[in-house]
Amino acid sequence: MANDKKLVEAITSMETDFAQWYTDVVKKAELIEYSSVKGCMVIKPAGYAIWENIQKELDRRFKETGVENVCMPMFIPESLLQKEKDHVEGFAPEVAWVTHGGLEELQERLCVRPTSETLFCDFYANDIQSYRDLPRLYNQWCSVVRWEKTTRPFLRSREFLWQEGHTAHATEEEAEERTIRMLNVYADFCEQVLAIPVIRGRKTDKEKFAGANATYTIEAMMHDGKALQSGTSHNFGDGFAKAFDIQYTDRDNTLKYVHQTSWGLSTRIIGAIIMVHGDDSGLVLPPAIAPTQIVIIPIQQRKEGVLQKAEELRQRLSGFRVKLDDSDKSPGWKFSEQEMRGFPLRVEIGPKDIEAGQCVIVRRDTREKITCSLDAIEETVEQTLKKMQTEMLERARAHRDSHIYEALDYETFCKTIDENPGFVKAMWCGDEACEMKIKEDTTATSRCMPFGAKAIGDRCVCCGRPADKMVIWGKAY
Amino acid sequence: MANDKKLVEAITSMETDFAQWYTDVVKKAELIEYSSVKGCMVIKPAGYAIWENIQKELDRRFKETGVENVCMPMFIPESLLQKEKDHVEGFAPEVAWVTHGGLEELQERLCVRPTSETLFCDFYANDIQSYRDLPRLYNQWCSVVRWEKTTRPFLRSREFLWQEGHTAHATEEEAEERTIRMLNVYADFCEQVLAIPVIRGRKTDKEKFAGANATYTIEAMMHDGKALQSGTSHNFGDGFAKAFDIQYTDRDNTLKYVHQTSWGLSTRIIGAIIMVHGDDSGLVLPPAIAPTQIVIIPIQQRKEGVLQKAEELRQRLSGFRVKLDDSDKSPGWKFSEQEMRGFPLRVEIGPKDIEAGQCVIVRRDTREKITCSLDAIEETVEQTLKKMQTEMLERARAHRDSHIYEALDYETFCKTIDENPGFVKAMWCGDEACEMKIKEDTTATSRCMPFGAKAIGDRCVCCGRPADKMVIWGKAY
Repeated sequence: MANDKKLVEAITSMETDFAQWYTDVVKKAELIEYSSVKGCMVIKPAGYAIWENIQKELDRRFKETGVENVCMPMFIPESLLQKEKDHVEGFAPEVAWVTHGGLEELQERLCVRPTSETLFCDFYANDIQSYRDLPRLYNQWCSVVRWEKTTRPFLRSREFLWQEGHTAHATEEEAEERTIRMLNVYADFCEQVLAIPVIRGRKTDKEKFAGANATYTIEAMMHDGKALQSGTSHNFGDGFAKAFDIQYTDRDNTLKYVHQTSWGLSTRIIGAIIMVHGDDSGLVLPPAIAPTQIVIIPIQQRKEGVLQKAEELRQRLSGFRVKLDDSDKSPGWKFSEQEMRGFPLRVEIGPKDIEAGQCVIVRRDTREKITCSLDAIEETVEQTLKKMQTEMLERARAHRDSHIYEALDYETFCKTIDENPGFVKAMWCGDEACEMKIKEDTTATSRCMPFGAKAIGDRCVCCGRPADKMVIWGKAY
Repeated sequence: MANDKKLVEAITSMETDFAQWYTDVVKKAELIEYSSVKGCMVIKPAGYAIWENIQKELDRRFKETGVENVCMPMFIPESLLQKEKDHVEGFAPEVAWVTHGGLEELQERLCVRPTSETLFCDFYANDIQSYRDLPRLYNQWCSVVRWEKTTRPFLRSREFLWQEGHTAHATEEEAEERTIRMLNVYADFCEQVLAIPVIRGRKTDKEKFAGANATYTIEAMMHDGKALQSGTSHNFGDGFAKAFDIQYTDRDNTLKYVHQTSWGLSTRIIGAIIMVHGDDSGLVLPPAIAPTQIVIIPIQQRKEGVLQKAEELRQRLSGFRVKLDDSDKSPGWKFSEQEMRGFPLRVEIGPKDIEAGQCVIVRRDTREKITCSLDAIEETVEQTLKKMQTEMLERARAHRDSHIYEALDYETFCKTIDENPGFVKAMWCGDEACEMKIKEDTTATSRCMPFGAKAIGDRCVCCGRPADKMVIWGKAY
């Protein structure tokens, strides 16, 4: 029993110190380990298996919309990075530079890609000739590097895994349609698979991607009320096309510039899963993404017939991601481990259960215990996983909605942001100066201008001038 | 018809110039495009889809043996790379160095990983404490960088995709068992999925991996008789463990060093698929790996009912990787394209076929035409794909076996290597000087000492001294 305690006691309570709780969970659930490479992490099997499931789900959704995967080089020649003015200004200060190859100094420095717009554009400039070549709907799964000063597991690291989609279209309308479509793919994925409710909206110009005409975002609220930008989709118009000379011959035999988009989602989202669903016992994984959905824990496993029955259940549940823990650890230790690692269900089965023809199913999120007839285990497990998935989303949505406030004047705005974890809705005039002032006064930033939002007034919450933009504000990761 | 011709004529014949034929196929089948980053390639959708299928098949096989996926950083601090003497000597001359992060010069240079032994060792040194932590069976899918001077699509590029497995074991025996086991996974995969017969064997000390005790390899013969090393598996003994101080407390409470292995297979293997199976019309993909297994090509598709029937067939064949080409190109152009891209089967269906209740199936490899009743299309397609897969392996094996020669004396050896594309079996004394001399005289290298090989004499083919090692020699990619 000493061991059981150790595992649990090692986590800081969320209420005491949310940041420390987060770090504890990441370590104790064995998702990540720090490495000797400053600011870079090792993603361990339990963490990487979550990413593999995210990849599988998203990749299928991308392909259903016609997207194809490709692989671009990881290096960008300095001259290529500099072709689009806003883009280089945004990224150059935070890239890693390769200056030597083998024993020789390079004639031109190469940066390790922080994102690959320039590489795709360089490729498209030759690849796209005619309207027949459009649209191009390409994506790649890779890692990118941004030389961050302060880093945190999953949330901010010098190297991180992501996918980046890059598309080229004949018209402005098609590009806009694709930008929104991919944002919706992200949003549906977050809600249906990760049980994370998100707010869809547009970024202000200050917060948009370097080189984009418009950036759309999905914003999620973590348990501590802070915002996490969970995926973004950018419409570039023909800005990059002009910088890289990507033209196609249209049906009318004239040369036209393409319109482009890009969209990305990264391993940051694993941070969101942890901070939306986790509790003081550790990780809580939504069934749809959990690498292990069910762990079977035999009780008094040395008694005759127990392990045999447990193995029989494992086989019957093999349509799910199930494992049997028949190690020599105590059941109590195994319970704690199931909780720490966030496996959605545990199935307890001991001699008394077997005699009664039943077992006990325990939900990770609510700790509800369900006594289940062995005959009905497949159906009960299936229903319970489904119910848990739905309820996790509902719970997260209720928590979020109860932490969204409105402010009509600046005093209320500042007080609300200061005293209440969560988001604040407020009107904004569109002037970047107001955004800056709000950030300086409160540390909150504009998260997005939600789609279809109703105005809650007609004056800017900051300067009092006329305003027609409803903005969600919040402190962010 | 002008277009049909163009597509086909653009390929150089294999007999005329095999290297040019290879480059033509790679380009015309749209597998790869050169990039603005010298020595780095863009893998296009048709090429990347092959890699995705390779990943899917291999990853499943790895996991069946207990392997878990992880993600290590892409950078290695210079001091870490230098910890194992042989390893750094082997790799330092060909790595890319990052010297600046953002606007600052780094205190210590980082190399972009050429392979990740040092990162895994650094991680294992903390991660492994007790015999309970063993074995560790980790793998990662990633890209690595080696600053090659001359590059060729898939075969040699500055950045390439691969997987690298890294395991740690309690005993020497276990490590050796794992090394061989993973070599066998590669060999079975190559033969069963890629239809590429391979020779399993051990590398000579001269050819082994930098830092390994023993390197095992699978060697394949390309259509031009040259060898391609298709996958390697290394036993490190406790050499890295001593350099990185990776010790565990054993059951008897003493500290012991772990024994390690690593094993890798890269996008080079796509080069092997091309060069083993391709012909003068383009790529020929084995059904088990082909991203598109069947293309349905409607004949006189504007005639009533043709497209409808073609679509009906597509739906009935949806258990396979099928696509319907209803573009406005001519059937002849579509046939050429199917051949160029190596889709295993095409199904032709026109008004006369529909009237007769049949369609025509054409195999890519043999061009055999099979008239098939529409009622039986699922079974016929399934059997034909299976047969094609088997026959492609048999054909490749027959080609290889008819190009393996034996040499008992040096004159015969040099003449055979010089005049006959293929491999030569010959005895070797074990002296590196003989290996060097053979390489200088013939440009052939020792490919491997095959498992279970019978001696074909008792004297070294080069120096005439006593020899008990049977070696396969060949010119290599």
